[in-house]
Amino acid sequence: MQTKNSKRIEEAEIRTTLDGWANALRSKDVDGVISHYVTDVVQFLLAPPLQYAGTDSLNKKGLEEWFSSFEGAIDYEIRDLKITTSDDVAYCHSINHMGGTKKGGEKTDIWLRQTTCLCKINGKWKITHEHESVPFYMDGSAKAAIDLKP
Amino acid sequence: MQTKNSKRIEEAEIRTTLDGWANALRSKDVDGVISHYVTDVVQFLLAPPLQYAGTDSLNKKGLEEWFSSFEGAIDYEIRDLKITTSDDVAYCHSINHMGGTKKGGEKTDIWLRQTTCLCKINGKWKITHEHESVPFYMDGSAKAAIDLKP
Repeated sequence: MQTKNSKRIEEAEIRTTLDGWANALRSKDVDGVISHYVTDVVQFLLAPPLQYAGTDSLNKKGLEEWFSSFEGAIDYEIRDLKITTSDDVAYCHSINHMGGTKKGGEKTDIWLRQTTCLCKINGKWKITHEHESVPFYMDGSAKAAIDLKP
Repeated sequence: MQTKNSKRIEEAEIRTTLDGWANALRSKDVDGVISHYVTDVVQFLLAPPLQYAGTDSLNKKGLEEWFSSFEGAIDYEIRDLKITTSDDVAYCHSINHMGGTKKGGEKTDIWLRQTTCLCKINGKWKITHEHESVPFYMDGSAKAAIDLKP
């Protein structure tokens, strides 16, 4: 069982890991983003399919394409981050904001829910599972609720 | 650090916990479902808002209303369940199917992504965070992808 102090140390390491991940995302640094994941990460993302899973599920090409669809940098903010950790397994949840301008001029401005799960592997916290989503309206339209604010 | 054997024991306990949760859900047993959560669970659900969080976030009335919107039992299947656990913190992900007939005759038949995070509290695994979602189409319609199959 961990002491409170060791939990605090792990939590600080995870916070640094997620900050590094978000910084790489903001600056569209593909290798920087990818360095935070295990190669067989299981991802539930905003766009279909239901999941990316399996050996080498990490989709570098998809990330490159997504980054290049933005005109400049991506605004990315992590809010309400809560980290729960043991010495080698952790989960985090937060409400994140993603903004930017797409090539063509369309604006992206969306609040999403993010759950990030990590394992400590060879002394480093790595993202092993990621789940990002918005809810959808139950009014018959089944429209994704991309207009919600926290 | 845990041994492989103790991880297997925790994993089996978590599997039993999730089976109990799903059984309670199938039989629309409100107290049975609720008994699996901490009272300040953070939930990211299919319907808005973005999150349920805070003291007493557990929404018993909402669950009762949702259960009573179904004509009979709810079909609920947990597929591709993967559990990652330490001795007191765990996360699980799966692709779940939910089916049933709503009062009024409308059919529910949806595959969703589920991430369930748990902590061992006083010797029992309890759900501390839950994230369920479907992705949405990036074709300009922003329709929730409620028609995907795994």
